[in-house]
Amino acid sequence: MYYIGIDIGGMSIKGGLVTQDGSILLKKTIVTGVDKKDRDIVLDIAALINDIISEYKIKKEDIKGIGIGSPGSVYDEKGIIRYCCNIPFRNTEIVKILKNELGINNIFVSNDANCACLGETMFGAAKGHKNTILMTLGTGVGTGFIVDGKLLTGFKSAGAEGGHIQINIGGKECGCGKKGHLEAYASAKALMQQIDEACIKNPDSLLNKLKEKEGLDGKIVFEAAKEGCKTAKSVLKKYIKYLGMGLVTLANVFFPEVIIIGGGVSNAGDDLIKPLQRYVSRNIYGSEFNPKIKVMAAELKNDAGIIGAACLAM
Amino acid sequence: MYYIGIDIGGMSIKGGLVTQDGSILLKKTIVTGVDKKDRDIVLDIAALINDIISEYKIKKEDIKGIGIGSPGSVYDEKGIIRYCCNIPFRNTEIVKILKNELGINNIFVSNDANCACLGETMFGAAKGHKNTILMTLGTGVGTGFIVDGKLLTGFKSAGAEGGHIQINIGGKECGCGKKGHLEAYASAKALMQQIDEACIKNPDSLLNKLKEKEGLDGKIVFEAAKEGCKTAKSVLKKYIKYLGMGLVTLANVFFPEVIIIGGGVSNAGDDLIKPLQRYVSRNIYGSEFNPKIKVMAAELKNDAGIIGAACLAM
Repeated sequence: MYYIGIDIGGMSIKGGLVTQDGSILLKKTIVTGVDKKDRDIVLDIAALINDIISEYKIKKEDIKGIGIGSPGSVYDEKGIIRYCCNIPFRNTEIVKILKNELGINNIFVSNDANCACLGETMFGAAKGHKNTILMTLGTGVGTGFIVDGKLLTGFKSAGAEGGHIQINIGGKECGCGKKGHLEAYASAKALMQQIDEACIKNPDSLLNKLKEKEGLDGKIVFEAAKEGCKTAKSVLKKYIKYLGMGLVTLANVFFPEVIIIGGGVSNAGDDLIKPLQRYVSRNIYGSEFNPKIKVMAAELKNDAGIIGAACLAM
Repeated sequence: MYYIGIDIGGMSIKGGLVTQDGSILLKKTIVTGVDKKDRDIVLDIAALINDIISEYKIKKEDIKGIGIGSPGSVYDEKGIIRYCCNIPFRNTEIVKILKNELGINNIFVSNDANCACLGETMFGAAKGHKNTILMTLGTGVGTGFIVDGKLLTGFKSAGAEGGHIQINIGGKECGCGKKGHLEAYASAKALMQQIDEACIKNPDSLLNKLKEKEGLDGKIVFEAAKEGCKTAKSVLKKYIKYLGMGLVTLANVFFPEVIIIGGGVSNAGDDLIKPLQRYVSRNIYGSEFNPKIKVMAAELKNDAGIIGAACLAM
């Protein structure tokens, strides 16, 4: 039996044929038609799924289920993508359209961070755990929560917006328009702003030299800090504090067994994870009598979207 | 069939005989023996339960279950009170001891805010809802969360500490020793500090006059604000903002149907609830496409502890 996972992004839509144990047998990618009508994008996805099935020479009846991960606001139970920033989904009945087009019934949709959290919990860094927080650091801050083995979605799937927790009264403006949200301090985009500001103030720093040589990218701050650059170390220290505060806030409420960090910034590996682990262990509520929470980098990397989406149907 | 709910507090322990529909038939109270050994306090509770059973002239077999709500850190699944500030519970096996003493098997323990949340969801302000946040404002800030009809406790029951979410970088010191936690801004104790500070700065204000006449109490700020006192209005505006920020942070993650406010401060009723409702509706993430969250005062009041605890066994 096979599953299909669809990972919708602003640039491309990836589809994969996934086994029961989370391996990808075949992957295909199409360009996201952001200029098309929402229904036509869904028809593109149906064609992508048909392509995968015919290329692997299996039948529709061999597909046990299909899962779709989408950015934006998704109403899981109704199979609707409510709203998406960069793709013209507006209350798009994606599950209904796909069921009609494909004649396959077991189809589910959820937010992409939810899918990644599910994927990491079933087949990645959090395997074997029943309580997980996943945080992906990209343009924004996405979060997913597994509570007692079940995905948390909130009333009408409106929850799990952990990027929009308030960490600073009257602080920086967030992408959503409100002030002081975690996303404004801890996203990859925020880190780049913090690097940029530090470079302007410290033009002679190694950090600024790396920026001029390699361009503005999150990874240069880790490189420069390793070489002893004080400016980079100071940027990183503050960033870890912001990110750590957000994680501690969420962990004090959920108390997961594992916190998984995904997105490009997590490629820094131990240089990010070790100081974050120290911050969380030191600042978690009741550290003297509560179990320790492990902080880890995501494992599924580029395939997280496809595998995580497929997990929705498992 | 009957249930028994036990509400443990630092001053007294209340016990009640509760029906399947959440009515209390009989209530009894004993003094909490804070100078005793933990086991002896549990034996006092066993005696209280026996008293209730004999006074109502029923048999042990008529008791379908017993629930206990305790302050502090409770390990629900193991039936242990890990730690409590004001009562000498330290890894106290309360469920095991009570089962042995009473010969009754269906006994459960949880944190008191969890019990209150369960009680309000089954029989109080949140009746009929499956996703609830409860916040009690007292010396500290207690929270309980119902997710898809189930109490959230976190790994080894260490979670649901919503008073210890970070709302202000490097802010006021919290009772737990960390800085900037919601509890340091939004507890009843914090409100009284805010009133006190405002009175010192504005000795001619009506607020200060009420303070001198009635003593320092949360309710004077609502009284003075109603009479048009600018000092009181300013204190209240800030307090609503702090409290609202905490609620919005939690609501963006859980997206409940209802938020219930309990504790002494909630007696202010609409004077507290209406501005809080406005704050939450205005600041919630995705207010343009997400469902509205209702903010309400707790309904069970003084009986919340007993009824909520009994709910653990239902």
